[in-house]
Amino acid sequence: MSGQDPIRRRRAIEQRAMRETEHTAHTALGSGAEFDAIRRILERWGPRAKRIGDDAAIVTTLGDRALVVSTDSSIENVHFRADWLTPVEIGYRATTAALSDLAAMGAKPLGLLAALAVPEEWRSRLEQITDGIGDAAELAGAPILGGDMSRSGELGLTITVLGAARAALFRTSARPGDQVYVTGRLGGPFAALRAFNSGESPAREHRKRFARPVARIAESIWLNEHGATAAIDISDGFAADIRHLAVASRVGITIQLDRLPCVDGVSPLDAAASGEEYELIVTAPAALDTSEFASRFGLELTEVGDVAHGKDEVRFMLGDEQVPGPPGYSHFTK
Amino acid sequence: MSGQDPIRRRRAIEQRAMRETEHTAHTALGSGAEFDAIRRILERWGPRAKRIGDDAAIVTTLGDRALVVSTDSSIENVHFRADWLTPVEIGYRATTAALSDLAAMGAKPLGLLAALAVPEEWRSRLEQITDGIGDAAELAGAPILGGDMSRSGELGLTITVLGAARAALFRTSARPGDQVYVTGRLGGPFAALRAFNSGESPAREHRKRFARPVARIAESIWLNEHGATAAIDISDGFAADIRHLAVASRVGITIQLDRLPCVDGVSPLDAAASGEEYELIVTAPAALDTSEFASRFGLELTEVGDVAHGKDEVRFMLGDEQVPGPPGYSHFTK
Repeated sequence: MSGQDPIRRRRAIEQRAMRETEHTAHTALGSGAEFDAIRRILERWGPRAKRIGDDAAIVTTLGDRALVVSTDSSIENVHFRADWLTPVEIGYRATTAALSDLAAMGAKPLGLLAALAVPEEWRSRLEQITDGIGDAAELAGAPILGGDMSRSGELGLTITVLGAARAALFRTSARPGDQVYVTGRLGGPFAALRAFNSGESPAREHRKRFARPVARIAESIWLNEHGATAAIDISDGFAADIRHLAVASRVGITIQLDRLPCVDGVSPLDAAASGEEYELIVTAPAALDTSEFASRFGLELTEVGDVAHGKDEVRFMLGDEQVPGPPGYSHFTK
Repeated sequence: MSGQDPIRRRRAIEQRAMRETEHTAHTALGSGAEFDAIRRILERWGPRAKRIGDDAAIVTTLGDRALVVSTDSSIENVHFRADWLTPVEIGYRATTAALSDLAAMGAKPLGLLAALAVPEEWRSRLEQITDGIGDAAELAGAPILGGDMSRSGELGLTITVLGAARAALFRTSARPGDQVYVTGRLGGPFAALRAFNSGESPAREHRKRFARPVARIAESIWLNEHGATAAIDISDGFAADIRHLAVASRVGITIQLDRLPCVDGVSPLDAAASGEEYELIVTAPAALDTSEFASRFGLELTEVGDVAHGKDEVRFMLGDEQVPGPPGYSHFTK
């Protein structure tokens, strides 16, 4: 397999998944209470559920492209706090979080739907929230195609995104011998939350990374076309998401934490724990032109580790020493 | 236009909508606070939003089919009450409500995504809720392809459904000269809610229509293939939804309320106000074989009115007398 063209290989995975009628085609999930709950549900659903567990679902094929779709909820006091973000930022960020799942699949957006649950006390800020949704949609080139609006007791935005990929990037398709790359600099959301939680104002650049993340759509399509083998976006934190990728691909991964690109004032361990970054982790044979990527997108692409045989395991190194990885974020254990 | 094959005509509408780059391609919306809010949002979104306002959105074409998608939220104490429905029924009903939007487009399901917002006190009933989602998905032949799970303060289920239609049924495409048909018998949910609100137990058949509605998927595909020109599903109530269809198609419609098929113990006016029926209203030239439909699906198809020139107006008749139509349901005015 290792000599095969990565696009052809991922096409084959796609086509096998589409033919697959057994529910065993689900992507392997990591550990934790949230994933235990999902595993129990999948067991009960049996063959009624198919191909669950990647950043987005492959629905069908569109000629030579795969149609991918993902849905993502942002709920007040779970995913955001009204005193930390403006209403425009709340709409922008919820939409970007969903669009980032298309980036994680190497897919070009086709459009999005916004289901808004709006309490009475938020009604006066509704248009600002939808302005933020519009900003994120426009930035990603995703037309808004529909949605739903309901009364509710708490503000909730569920954004569904649709996209098309010539050959989708899965989290299951990393290969021994690949290198691990990450886009951008990590730790901004961590630093912003640290400041908010201490009652301080975050530094301007940290707040911006927290409030105005960018879904790496164009970057992902470029990476997909330039040999990436697998990808995941960083929502639970680099450390947690690289574990998801290792488990899904059934490989061993070694990460050099001191290579992790960090924003000012954040240590590599804290940067690796920082969630809701919406940067991408990709694997690829050691052939990605990081300089061309940087000059094209004005964004760093950094090689931070490598993939080996071994199973479902990530080793985090600081220099020559192996260190325990930082914990991930789970909505069900916090 | 009136002599043209209805499928070719709707294909042309589809293709014009897909070429359309102006936001003026939105479907005309009815009156009321909810729609005023949506109109204001659409104005602010401008060209960032496209083709909003039908039961489901056309995303792209799949060879000779259109890909349609819709998202629908069900929120505790807005769309359901925990003392009126079992957890299985809550999951089933939320999923059926979303699938019904595919039926309203004449589309065959490709799959669905379930975004679940789950408060701590609901965790023990989560698997029953997802059993209900699985039941509805299986009944409609829609594999579950993905989703999202979050903590929250109130139970919310946002179900996104994807489908394909050879030529989608819009609410904009009813024509003067068409007849108006409705599937099934109306009023069950009205009667169930009337009983619940009086502290009584609803009759068994009324409760079943309320708790276990059926998305009319196979029926819709048959109607689409047998000459239907336009369709909408009954979620806001027959009277409100026929008004939506008249406004969207820019036609006048006359409804003979005494022809409305009603469940036992419910008057035509109350049946016309009954929401969350998930039966279909379709328009078609006076050529639908209602007997064949009834014997094929074990479900009535009843002709209840007709479409004429005129604009955005529905006349409700009881015998020879015009009566005021019953009000519709709006989450934002109740």
